[in-house]
Amino acid sequence: MTTPQQVRIVEVGPRDGLQNEKAIIPTAVKIELIDRLGETGLRSIEATSFVSPKWIPQLADAAEVFTGIARRAGVSYPVLVPNVQGYERARAVGAEEVAVFAAASEAFSKANINASIEESITRFEPVLERARADGVKVRGYVSTVLGCPYQGDVPLADVVRVATRLHRAGCYEISLGDTIGIGTPLKAKAMLAAVAAEVPMSALAIHFHDTRGQALANILACLDLGVAVIDAAVSGTGGCPYAKGASGNVASEDVVFMLEGMGIATGIDLPKLIATGQWLAAQLGRETGSKVGKAAA
Amino acid sequence: MTTPQQVRIVEVGPRDGLQNEKAIIPTAVKIELIDRLGETGLRSIEATSFVSPKWIPQLADAAEVFTGIARRAGVSYPVLVPNVQGYERARAVGAEEVAVFAAASEAFSKANINASIEESITRFEPVLERARADGVKVRGYVSTVLGCPYQGDVPLADVVRVATRLHRAGCYEISLGDTIGIGTPLKAKAMLAAVAAEVPMSALAIHFHDTRGQALANILACLDLGVAVIDAAVSGTGGCPYAKGASGNVASEDVVFMLEGMGIATGIDLPKLIATGQWLAAQLGRETGSKVGKAAA
Repeated sequence: MTTPQQVRIVEVGPRDGLQNEKAIIPTAVKIELIDRLGETGLRSIEATSFVSPKWIPQLADAAEVFTGIARRAGVSYPVLVPNVQGYERARAVGAEEVAVFAAASEAFSKANINASIEESITRFEPVLERARADGVKVRGYVSTVLGCPYQGDVPLADVVRVATRLHRAGCYEISLGDTIGIGTPLKAKAMLAAVAAEVPMSALAIHFHDTRGQALANILACLDLGVAVIDAAVSGTGGCPYAKGASGNVASEDVVFMLEGMGIATGIDLPKLIATGQWLAAQLGRETGSKVGKAAA
Repeated sequence: MTTPQQVRIVEVGPRDGLQNEKAIIPTAVKIELIDRLGETGLRSIEATSFVSPKWIPQLADAAEVFTGIARRAGVSYPVLVPNVQGYERARAVGAEEVAVFAAASEAFSKANINASIEESITRFEPVLERARADGVKVRGYVSTVLGCPYQGDVPLADVVRVATRLHRAGCYEISLGDTIGIGTPLKAKAMLAAVAAEVPMSALAIHFHDTRGQALANILACLDLGVAVIDAAVSGTGGCPYAKGASGNVASEDVVFMLEGMGIATGIDLPKLIATGQWLAAQLGRETGSKVGKAAA
């Protein structure tokens, strides 16, 4: 267990970030964002989500976005799918990687998707079967790994159990999400260590929100354990539905600045990423959520 | 060398923070800020600076501020003094702790105070002599320890040399400042380790600006080495004269949230500190620079 020499950033801005922005974002802007991100050296860009438009109207243009982007060789464009219907819509437009999500907190699962954790996993098992048959990669998200807005503490054993189930069910990578940005470094590290005792570190990613400014410190603590995949969102888009006005995803620019400063290669052209974040902030009519972006302005 | 069990926060908002804010701040607000901070459990609150009002008009009310605050037993209220004249003004109103400052970067020293590093140290040697005779504690700042806006890189040897001189000259504590917030964790840790080879860790403090969002991660890396004194500013006031619109000092609220979450005691009442930061942001007519403060709003 040692700090990695290279890290892959999974850019989640176009989906996780924009989904939680207040502004209504034109489809053309979403497409341009993804295409700009594709030019920065990123290898994983979560493009959109094929949830029912009834649930999340902001994502009703998922198919249009996915067919509109210029997919680059060597870049993966995973899309979120909540069930087989979503999977089929995603496949119909050519998605080659999908993502499913479960919560580590029972209370959160109930409140968020009106299903127990068990029910939610049952719901996407057919997705995993279909994906296996189709040769489609599946990424799994576990949310609320460091705390829950409804139940407070989330037992480590629950995080480990859900992550292990997703991995055994066929997810090639499990992204561990501090959905409400409540974690601090030692807790983040202990959580990752507990999961890594059951799932290989090479199959784990960390996904930290910066709601309380802790994300980079938490990432630093986890790098010590050798985790080499980090989710982040350009311009720090997102916000937090459970804390009005709070910060969103950790900003990709700030993560890359830290990693490159530590001699950890990301393969990303930071000036291009910064420019993309500044362009996006202008499109959203808000200040960039990236401090590196602000310092460069 | 191991993570400390307790950390003393040196609150630098009333001086370092407010000095770099654009808003003109009424003397009464400065006094109320310091008095509110005194009720949070903080033991060190840098109150003001006795520089010449010709240099920094925002600080022309230093004497008025210092005499206006309700000094609490057990709380130290250091004030910055650039020279013997400043020292005398500070002593005239009853200051019992002062601070002097030098740069690790020759180019910064020239640009900032129009003196070489050597000249600047010579200038405050009489202050240290007087302070010794008067039984007044002296804190020493070293700025630009991780980079300089004029010369770029700052050799570690220069940081070590200036910090060691200040310590030998009688400063009981040396605060190592990343003035432009350019450092990343491994560099911060290497810098601290180099200084700690010459100056006891118990006489060292870290002072990181959050210009590029790295401050908490840098602090975390340095805690590993056992540093137990951290400078921070409530509400993250300050900004950066070298990066327009950039973030300022690391926010005290965010530092305390991290430390307490790691089981490191600060003795600070976090809800009171958050309330003070929110009150201050309202006085300044700006959003709080503390993400913990935003999440709690």
